[in-house]
Amino acid sequence: MTKNNASLRSLEVCFSPALIHLHDISDSIVVVIDVLRATSSICVAFANGVKSIVPVATIEESHSYKAKGYLVGAERNGEMLDGYDLGNSPFSYLDPRVKDRDIALTTTNGTQAIAASSGAYQIAIGSFLNLDCLCDWLKDQNKNVLLLCSGWKNSFNLEDTILAGAIAEQLEPHYEMNGMCDAVIAAMHLYSLAKPDLNTFLDKSSHRKRLERLQIDKDVEYCLTPNLAPVVPVMVNGVLVKFVA
Amino acid sequence: MTKNNASLRSLEVCFSPALIHLHDISDSIVVVIDVLRATSSICVAFANGVKSIVPVATIEESHSYKAKGYLVGAERNGEMLDGYDLGNSPFSYLDPRVKDRDIALTTTNGTQAIAASSGAYQIAIGSFLNLDCLCDWLKDQNKNVLLLCSGWKNSFNLEDTILAGAIAEQLEPHYEMNGMCDAVIAAMHLYSLAKPDLNTFLDKSSHRKRLERLQIDKDVEYCLTPNLAPVVPVMVNGVLVKFVA
Repeated sequence: MTKNNASLRSLEVCFSPALIHLHDISDSIVVVIDVLRATSSICVAFANGVKSIVPVATIEESHSYKAKGYLVGAERNGEMLDGYDLGNSPFSYLDPRVKDRDIALTTTNGTQAIAASSGAYQIAIGSFLNLDCLCDWLKDQNKNVLLLCSGWKNSFNLEDTILAGAIAEQLEPHYEMNGMCDAVIAAMHLYSLAKPDLNTFLDKSSHRKRLERLQIDKDVEYCLTPNLAPVVPVMVNGVLVKFVA
Repeated sequence: MTKNNASLRSLEVCFSPALIHLHDISDSIVVVIDVLRATSSICVAFANGVKSIVPVATIEESHSYKAKGYLVGAERNGEMLDGYDLGNSPFSYLDPRVKDRDIALTTTNGTQAIAASSGAYQIAIGSFLNLDCLCDWLKDQNKNVLLLCSGWKNSFNLEDTILAGAIAEQLEPHYEMNGMCDAVIAAMHLYSLAKPDLNTFLDKSSHRKRLERLQIDKDVEYCLTPNLAPVVPVMVNGVLVKFVA
């Protein structure tokens, strides 16, 4: 695939679910990004044999799934909620007991961003953990791509932006970037600054500070490590499953 | 003023008027930024002796001001509208005939961002043309500051972001930045990349391309030149006037 025959496809970045209405996503793959930690955990789950994940927007909604035999994961403001099976740490999803299970998951930002993408041609899940594998898959799809940063409660955040930049860096040679959206340019610049040491680059960021208070440094380090979970979770009929070619 | 006695004041950046509801602006000075070209032109106008500017959101609203003897400026999608006295080019406002006049102005992005800031403690106008003077004034005010990028039809844009970064660079030593908002960090990083040559940095940006098609390179070059119009326009009772100490 060269740039010349790719002129009709677009690559865009959106910094907040609250701005997604500015993009026509009906013919786009929306890649939902919530590096710390929802989309990272979703990738780990599928790499570890989870059968399906239903993203649910509210805690109330998750209760009905418990009764149906689902494992239920719930996080608000960075913390696992009492009485649930799983939180939002990628390490929860390395537990062998998740293999072949169906999971219902609700989080502060990630599952809200998935809900905001409901009009998309297709929804896929992005994290550093599935970076190369996701980019290869996106190149194969030959579609418009919107990289949606979940942010923190609809505000811009750095960790999702630098992943968007990392994905854009791989896709850019395959897309027509003349007059490309400024958010793509900004994300790529920020990733170029972050790339030598992602952890140090994010040291001053707000969500990093928030998670520091929760003492989950190991989660952060894990979530910033590329290609530990080489799977592409996609949404099929409202349920996330692992893409199988 | 040192960091030690400034811990209660905040410095934030907002990348779109459509996200301003995420910030409590009731006790903040909102600096509205629309580098290409509304807020640049507003600074030029006041440096050139304009008495007042009424920002109006709609073209219809601007008509009533014409009847009252105002000069009327109107721009949509980068172009001056037929039948109006002024467009959105800073050079329009260098005309000696604007001296001592009252102006009503409506633009695609800038005047919309001013309207979105209506709940602020105070509204001020920012551009590269008044950079140092604005920063000195902000330091004197001893208030929370939100730098609001007008963007392009609510989407993120680069030129407003790098100005936000330039302002943040000057204010940062005077604010408590522990856990500061990620948008401030991103804007400062992008400005650090842009600083050696703003024009070249923005060459690939989307609005720069839009204006290139309109052949207004001179406008862009002028708008990116620091400190040509050392005034601080502020909103008083719904009308922009030059701040006088």
